[in-house]
Amino acid sequence: MKDHTVMSGMRPTGRLHMGNMLGALMNWVKLQEEYECYFSIADWHALTTGYESTEQINENIKQMTIDWISVGIDPEKCTIFRQSHVKQHAELHLLLSMLTPLSWLERCPTYKEQLKQLDGKDINTYGFLGYPVLMTSDILIYKADRVPVGEDQEPHLELAREIVRRFNYLYTPVFPEPEGIHTKVKVLPGVDGRKMSKSYGNLIEISATPETIRQKVGVMVTDPARVRKSDPGHPDVCNVYAFYKAFGEKQLEEVREACEKGLIGCVECKKNLAKLIIEKTKPIREKRKALENNPKLIDDVLEDGAMRATKIAEQTLEEVRSAMKI
Amino acid sequence: MKDHTVMSGMRPTGRLHMGNMLGALMNWVKLQEEYECYFSIADWHALTTGYESTEQINENIKQMTIDWISVGIDPEKCTIFRQSHVKQHAELHLLLSMLTPLSWLERCPTYKEQLKQLDGKDINTYGFLGYPVLMTSDILIYKADRVPVGEDQEPHLELAREIVRRFNYLYTPVFPEPEGIHTKVKVLPGVDGRKMSKSYGNLIEISATPETIRQKVGVMVTDPARVRKSDPGHPDVCNVYAFYKAFGEKQLEEVREACEKGLIGCVECKKNLAKLIIEKTKPIREKRKALENNPKLIDDVLEDGAMRATKIAEQTLEEVRSAMKI
Repeated sequence: MKDHTVMSGMRPTGRLHMGNMLGALMNWVKLQEEYECYFSIADWHALTTGYESTEQINENIKQMTIDWISVGIDPEKCTIFRQSHVKQHAELHLLLSMLTPLSWLERCPTYKEQLKQLDGKDINTYGFLGYPVLMTSDILIYKADRVPVGEDQEPHLELAREIVRRFNYLYTPVFPEPEGIHTKVKVLPGVDGRKMSKSYGNLIEISATPETIRQKVGVMVTDPARVRKSDPGHPDVCNVYAFYKAFGEKQLEEVREACEKGLIGCVECKKNLAKLIIEKTKPIREKRKALENNPKLIDDVLEDGAMRATKIAEQTLEEVRSAMKI
Repeated sequence: MKDHTVMSGMRPTGRLHMGNMLGALMNWVKLQEEYECYFSIADWHALTTGYESTEQINENIKQMTIDWISVGIDPEKCTIFRQSHVKQHAELHLLLSMLTPLSWLERCPTYKEQLKQLDGKDINTYGFLGYPVLMTSDILIYKADRVPVGEDQEPHLELAREIVRRFNYLYTPVFPEPEGIHTKVKVLPGVDGRKMSKSYGNLIEISATPETIRQKVGVMVTDPARVRKSDPGHPDVCNVYAFYKAFGEKQLEEVREACEKGLIGCVECKKNLAKLIIEKTKPIREKRKALENNPKLIDDVLEDGAMRATKIAEQTLEEVRSAMKI
């Protein structure tokens, strides 16, 4: 048994992109070595904003699981499961809802902001307001005391701690207060230089074929001031260089020098980058292919993960019920 | 299998009073003959307003179950269970929360009113706001299409129907729209003439001993204009007469006549009433005694009820998951 327990999750949005890989997933790959990790495919969370169309959800879950395992999340080292397979999350969510003041949720900074951002969607629902309570129950049901968070999720974690304090005070101390793990992760821009994101259509999927990678790298925005190959380039404003930072740390100095001295053209530089990315992601594509040919394996991983998660979740819930005398 | 399914429940507040018996419970006793009935001891609901002190809840559940069975709710004819034993209620509650607009809950007439009434309690919680969603899931999980309701609960049933329509429209028709059963039930006043209620301290428990019944009837308020036995009384303003309506339909004319003609004094009239109530409730006390001596039986009833309820609830939830593709 490891000293600390980590809980994290993702909504099943389908195939992930290389930004997800270099950000959250590579972090998880490290965390699974050090901590007892629970990684959840948060399908109930997906309903908070996507209850109106759920046709894709099962396929999305499959594709995301394949991506996770392909990049190195190892079901032998951590517990991968589908949230809705572990019913205890729903029961704890209901119990915690009883002692969570409405105002804590209404004042949650992300709440009003998301309402605004997702303006086109009808998400003014009871479930969407309660999303941080569901997230809290995801964490607490495994007594996770470490949660990898970006800055924008810090308010949710603060809320989780408030709920823990309230529960422990009202009944019996059952839960630890979860702390955030703030890891500086590599941020990969999209091919157009903006944040890599599904909604911008500027992403490269983890599962992209070599052709797609070549094509996507081919259209990347470079230093706009550089017209001729012999012009000195400015790597710091170049999107291609940003990708080198993520995929070619060894080549970094060499690429910078060649660019600044006008020794290499953007087209050639992109070809080299594409080759590099293709090479580095080759094992991932191979792993994916093997998994795609063996769908039963994915089912088994999720089933086994749910079983393990349920066991721990039920233990926690027993304690909760006994503390609440219910 | 009967044509219609009825769902109803009570929060476990402990021993019930004779007002509960003549109101809800006698109605249930009739309903169980005609309908497939699910009667729930709503312990999760009790948390919406009582999460801060749960010490009494298990004892309250036991006492309430004994009262139910003592007055004739028959576990062979209906399904009696403890809400928190049927986990499917929590899962359906979570799923329905995703598609329930906040405004439906905020505008629920009973919501603001209760907030005002229970002013001393800290119930401005997420769970309290969602109470009608939990109630809806209680009904829908058994596909109950008939719900006995008083006038004040009609808005909750209307909300349940709205949620049904929304669900059936968004996904696949799974649920029937529950209709209210409006039965005129006997209303029993408290010993002081006001509504019989725990908070007024004016009740007679179903399980009251003969001595207690005599004592409680002894202090009942009668016609205040009647000073001497020979004065003509006015049964319609007399509390004792109100109890005769409930317990002595046969004697009703005789009592009225004797009172109006000044042939019987209030003391004697009360003694007769006490005797009547004691006689009519004797089988209930005997049944209670037998149950108290056999606590295992109560556990068995609740366990068996939970098992039966869970089976149906899980079937419904399978349909729900398949409709929502989750």
